[in-house]
Amino acid sequence: MKAIELSAKWNPKPNYKLGLKDIEGKLTYLGSQVWKHPEVQLVEKSVPKIKPNEVLIKVKRCGICGSDVHMNQTTKDGYIYYPGLTAFPVTLGHEFSGEIVESGIKAFNKRTGKPYEKGEPVTVEEMVWCGECKPCCDGYPNHCERLQEIGFSIDGAFAEYIAVPAKLCWSLKKLEKRYEDIYKIGSLVEPTSVAYNAVIERGEGIRPGENGIILGAGPIGLAAVKILKTAGAGLIIVSEPEEHRAQLAKKMGADYVFSPLKENFTDKVQELTDNEGAAIYLEATGLPDMVIPDIQNTIWECKAVNSTVVIVARAEQHMPVCGEYFQVRRARIVGAQGHSGHGTFPNVISSMGAGMDMTPMITKEISLEEVPKHLQLLQTDRENCKISVKI
Amino acid sequence: MKAIELSAKWNPKPNYKLGLKDIEGKLTYLGSQVWKHPEVQLVEKSVPKIKPNEVLIKVKRCGICGSDVHMNQTTKDGYIYYPGLTAFPVTLGHEFSGEIVESGIKAFNKRTGKPYEKGEPVTVEEMVWCGECKPCCDGYPNHCERLQEIGFSIDGAFAEYIAVPAKLCWSLKKLEKRYEDIYKIGSLVEPTSVAYNAVIERGEGIRPGENGIILGAGPIGLAAVKILKTAGAGLIIVSEPEEHRAQLAKKMGADYVFSPLKENFTDKVQELTDNEGAAIYLEATGLPDMVIPDIQNTIWECKAVNSTVVIVARAEQHMPVCGEYFQVRRARIVGAQGHSGHGTFPNVISSMGAGMDMTPMITKEISLEEVPKHLQLLQTDRENCKISVKI
Amino acid sequence: MKAIELSAKWNPKPNYKLGLKDIEGKLTYLGSQVWKHPEVQLVEKSVPKIKPNEVLIKVKRCGICGSDVHMNQTTKDGYIYYPGLTAFPVTLGHEFSGEIVESGIKAFNKRTGKPYEKGEPVTVEEMVWCGECKPCCDGYPNHCERLQEIGFSIDGAFAEYIAVPAKLCWSLKKLEKRYEDIYKIGSLVEPTSVAYNAVIERGEGIRPGENGIILGAGPIGLAAVKILKTAGAGLIIVSEPEEHRAQLAKKMGADYVFSPLKENFTDKVQELTDNEGAAIYLEATGLPDMVIPDIQNTIWECKAVNSTVVIVARAEQHMPVCGEYFQVRRARIVGAQGHSGHGTFPNVISSMGAGMDMTPMITKEISLEEVPKHLQLLQTDRENCKISVKI
Amino acid sequence: MKAIELSAKWNPKPNYKLGLKDIEGKLTYLGSQVWKHPEVQLVEKSVPKIKPNEVLIKVKRCGICGSDVHMNQTTKDGYIYYPGLTAFPVTLGHEFSGEIVESGIKAFNKRTGKPYEKGEPVTVEEMVWCGECKPCCDGYPNHCERLQEIGFSIDGAFAEYIAVPAKLCWSLKKLEKRYEDIYKIGSLVEPTSVAYNAVIERGEGIRPGENGIILGAGPIGLAAVKILKTAGAGLIIVSEPEEHRAQLAKKMGADYVFSPLKENFTDKVQELTDNEGAAIYLEATGLPDMVIPDIQNTIWECKAVNSTVVIVARAEQHMPVCGEYFQVRRARIVGAQGHSGHGTFPNVISSMGAGMDMTPMITKEISLEEVPKHLQLLQTDRENCKISVKI
Repeated sequence: MKAIELSAKWNPKPNYKLGLKDIEGKLTYLGSQVWKHPEVQLVEKSVPKIKPNEVLIKVKRCGICGSDVHMNQTTKDGYIYYPGLTAFPVTLGHEFSGEIVESGIKAFNKRTGKPYEKGEPVTVEEMVWCGECKPCCDGYPNHCERLQEIGFSIDGAFAEYIAVPAKLCWSLKKLEKRYEDIYKIGSLVEPTSVAYNAVIERGEGIRPGENGIILGAGPIGLAAVKILKTAGAGLIIVSEPEEHRAQLAKKMGADYVFSPLKENFTDKVQELTDNEGAAIYLEATGLPDMVIPDIQNTIWECKAVNSTVVIVARAEQHMPVCGEYFQVRRARIVGAQGHSGHGTFPNVISSMGAGMDMTPMITKEISLEEVPKHLQLLQTDRENCKISVKI
Repeated sequence: MKAIELSAKWNPKPNYKLGLKDIEGKLTYLGSQVWKHPEVQLVEKSVPKIKPNEVLIKVKRCGICGSDVHMNQTTKDGYIYYPGLTAFPVTLGHEFSGEIVESGIKAFNKRTGKPYEKGEPVTVEEMVWCGECKPCCDGYPNHCERLQEIGFSIDGAFAEYIAVPAKLCWSLKKLEKRYEDIYKIGSLVEPTSVAYNAVIERGEGIRPGENGIILGAGPIGLAAVKILKTAGAGLIIVSEPEEHRAQLAKKMGADYVFSPLKENFTDKVQELTDNEGAAIYLEATGLPDMVIPDIQNTIWECKAVNSTVVIVARAEQHMPVCGEYFQVRRARIVGAQGHSGHGTFPNVISSMGAGMDMTPMITKEISLEEVPKHLQLLQTDRENCKISVKI
Repeated sequence: MKAIELSAKWNPKPNYKLGLKDIEGKLTYLGSQVWKHPEVQLVEKSVPKIKPNEVLIKVKRCGICGSDVHMNQTTKDGYIYYPGLTAFPVTLGHEFSGEIVESGIKAFNKRTGKPYEKGEPVTVEEMVWCGECKPCCDGYPNHCERLQEIGFSIDGAFAEYIAVPAKLCWSLKKLEKRYEDIYKIGSLVEPTSVAYNAVIERGEGIRPGENGIILGAGPIGLAAVKILKTAGAGLIIVSEPEEHRAQLAKKMGADYVFSPLKENFTDKVQELTDNEGAAIYLEATGLPDMVIPDIQNTIWECKAVNSTVVIVARAEQHMPVCGEYFQVRRARIVGAQGHSGHGTFPNVISSMGAGMDMTPMITKEISLEEVPKHLQLLQTDRENCKISVKI
Repeated sequence: MKAIELSAKWNPKPNYKLGLKDIEGKLTYLGSQVWKHPEVQLVEKSVPKIKPNEVLIKVKRCGICGSDVHMNQTTKDGYIYYPGLTAFPVTLGHEFSGEIVESGIKAFNKRTGKPYEKGEPVTVEEMVWCGECKPCCDGYPNHCERLQEIGFSIDGAFAEYIAVPAKLCWSLKKLEKRYEDIYKIGSLVEPTSVAYNAVIERGEGIRPGENGIILGAGPIGLAAVKILKTAGAGLIIVSEPEEHRAQLAKKMGADYVFSPLKENFTDKVQELTDNEGAAIYLEATGLPDMVIPDIQNTIWECKAVNSTVVIVARAEQHMPVCGEYFQVRRARIVGAQGHSGHGTFPNVISSMGAGMDMTPMITKEISLEEVPKHLQLLQTDRENCKISVKI
């Protein structure tokens, strides 16, 4: 079968010390410290064999994620951008949907409560949580101590077929009533779930009528816009400097979008909310050191108590947090990571089935063969949001 | 000024013993045990004087509530139906909106953080919570130990003017952008808040994509339909035998409405939800002994865990609850009462401002003079839902 | 090795229809409908073999549970009392502790984050949750759709050795500092966890200073007494008619114990709490139809709002619940089942390590050989609480 | 009557602009920007008159708080240290207990549900929340927009008598069974409630068996130690460099106390908790920029997910927060302020009644006449914790 494979050279930086869970020459938890000279190409592989608790999926759609781009993008010294768990060579692709074509003897369908049958349309969690470590046993699979990641440390879905544990699969049947191409929107369940986990599970959602403010209109920020509108937000305000992204935010349902380069953030929020502020602020820019001062000044100046600041974008920079603002306004900061557990995937699918249409995020549809080229283009292209690969 | 006043005869039933907080000849917590021969008429009263922490409101709209009807409706022995707190004679009316025309020196506008100014459009909580008993101090004004009720134990809003504590008022400014007649929808904030308190505060809401089932499509049930759709419900299913009500439920956004007299409740829910069931069940029929068996059988048969059954309709009947069903399905039952506190009124207004239009519930608009007649008609009329009085 | 095995005759009642998950002649979800003529005896079995994700435990202690007695106790027609999941013949015993003596290659120790080593002292969840059904994936293993139960449907711990999935094991290391015999108290982790799940996870605990009322001083009720005292309860009041049990409740820390046969429940609670009532009521009697009226009258008469009634004992009887009491007092009823997930086992062990000593519950210690006799005795003995078997 | 009064000179700093709610010459929300040359003296005042909703209290005990010291302490340029709401001259003192000696006609006793009677022993919230602004109406009196503060902006309790709104009073009756001097421990309810609000209300408490780490063993940190031990903490670890404070922490129940000047914070916590970390970290040092890096490194290195960092000490410094640590460990930061609402005062009293004895915090007892001298001494004295004034 055809697959898009990324290979790279294991060449740890001089000062890098292998971690306890790293495997020499094969797997690391800190990709950008180790891998050099990545190469992406269309290869021929054999169709994977499934284990008793696995299913074989014929992939129909797979979206390109920013991390796919960053695994293939290098700094001047040749090391890849992507800082996380990686084991190369690997088939890329983790935002996908497809059809069950084979099912292990122990592969259980959560929808029916019976063994999987051929033909079930599904999407799949990217995080292969172990189910046996303490966070998993306590109900927090997003914080699994022995995580593997599809399309990062094990083979992904830019391929004709993929084998995955059945427990990671969620049926797309509910989408059939509303969408002609359930696989297209189905491939958006994974990124939408990252946003849902951030604002609904970690941010504890909003009550209908409360406001939300989204900083950054990348895929996660855009998904959060739609989720919070679906949840009954009074106003959703988006801060985004890039014009194409701003347009998309409007399409996804934002009530107001402004550029923080052109407007004073706090003034604008005060004006748009009649000085109320918001119940939830989502940091989705990756520039927390720049935006946190704006967020906390706004919390301070506006009247709302109990605001929650959710940090979903990854960043290494420290944020200059002023505790007093969080005391006076009864506010809090929470970190968000992952998309598994807590009913997130099935709730996202169910929401989509009820009309939460995320497809405006897809700005281009391509074939598998076009993936390598687009991984290159996306290093600089800011006009596309989500590119969806038809397989 | 003109006002609709209800008077009745203080004539406690033989076996009735005055409660600790009852006041001989004037006020009782158990109206149906005490009041006989109610009479409703249009009277002339003087415009009320305000205290320093009060405002005077020129009433614009006031809806007729079932309890208005029941205060005026009697059993064979002449006692009124309404079982609760009452002090007659009283001006009826508690679902209202109007404009501030005078403001006490200490009357504080929660919207502006400044003293009230003339012209602010407002709606008002019906529950005059004391703010000084333990439930009030702990944050539970719906359970105030020293409650007074507007239109029940103190003069209400079927009148040209009403004086109320400023702390009970909530601005309707946010509705101006979307609604031509903000007072019409504004008079629906109170009943909507009863439903919001039931499903959002007490029922702890739903996550987007989860299902809700509403039993009974009276005003509270209908409001709950719209609120839960606004909150992103996957499916909202309504059980309602009466055809006009069923039609209204569809108008308010229900995905499915069925008659429990024609369909088996559990079978129908299993069919419509692919055997999933629902996150929330709202008992809004007043017949809990009849519907609880259906609800708990459905919880038992369907797959969902963590269902919440919210009891919002008042009823004296015992419900035959089977604990094991609630154990196996990790379910619970909560009682809901009131509309105050917890941000409910402002969140309802804000939701309306964002498009949660409850006005389809209003099936007729009348004048103040027509109120007495309609209080009579509504004793038997099942076709009207909410009658709105223009003042 | 030696083991206590229960066998019985598969003889479904005439009107009994096998369930979807029942297995003819072997396994049923409704034991009392199927199994006749149980026999318990000490047998010789071979030491079990472990799978890659399992460990072999040398059992040190195992407590006798009421369900062990009920599997061996019959009604007049010869059917066993125990109504749940069973597959006979089976080695009994599920409240146990022991030492790891062999470890599968994939057996992961949650304490160390490494493979299990010999010598780790552990206790084990009785519920073998699958980790792959929807409730498991959502974080609710107590509601696993494919549960197996140690000592019921798979071999238990009244034996010298037992093989179990490593994910069910929890280290007892923390107990070494405080207890001489960590296996003795370690065998109480399972029943304590059932109570902890009921009052802390499902009942959402108490805030320090709030009151709790426990109805029924069997093992679960007694464990709940100690847990809520540990959690800082203001007063813990126990309702228990049986004198030995009442004495034990005092030993476990109850502030007051009274007999509901001699005192009026509501009057007594009003008197002892200065009319405040309690934050939590635990139904642990198995007679919900008898005690719920007492509980809800007390909620009604006392001042506390927000009371939670937790149903932990199993019973088929319907409870006559009056919704209005739960509305007026902002109260709720929740069902509780199981002991897995939510950090319960490790928190119980940690609490024991910090001084929550449950060993007063153990009223007798016996050998493996003495188990069959004591399963008989316990059918009538009301003086013993927990009998602990040294192996 | 005798009273300890602080007066100062209104002399706003050159660059200081009066706030909207400041009152020229009388009241400011930013004391240290305005008041110069404070003087404290014992004066003779008339016994205050009560309003209808107020009570007159004969003060029995009043503790000295750090803020009392800071209102009387100046920087080099003569301005007071205390940065908050102040209106001078004022009678100091806000951590107090006493006996009701007179009661307004509307003064309602929350304990009895009846008007206050003479003789009731009470303690009083320091925060005079208005009950009418949005945060108050929503249930968040600690964030009242129109706060007055006893002993800061209105006369306090270093006096023989004080008049206060009845709604702020809480009965000490529950303490009579256990304590000989209920007024002594009663005067500790206020500071204990600040800690209770921080760790139980804002930090959402702990489950029995979970660990807590307290940074800083001043009065709030010490109270938090005892509260969390009362709530069933597995381990309580205190970081405190000062030897006398460290000793007190042990007395209050800390399992371990170490000096962050002598030990590496993260290493020590890893060692003491077997690398688990803690469910709650309380920043009570006032040096958040220094301790936050330690806290978040510890969260990162230890295994616990879901840690909550509560900021209770006031400080202007920014904390260098690394969002990624909070993402990976599912952690959060919350601000805590105040002691009102949420059942906090009554729960603290009830906890004390059940044995949570905070009196070891009192290191000295003095008379009213000795207050001025001790306000001076406490500017440098680090050996005393809480000084209690007998009146």
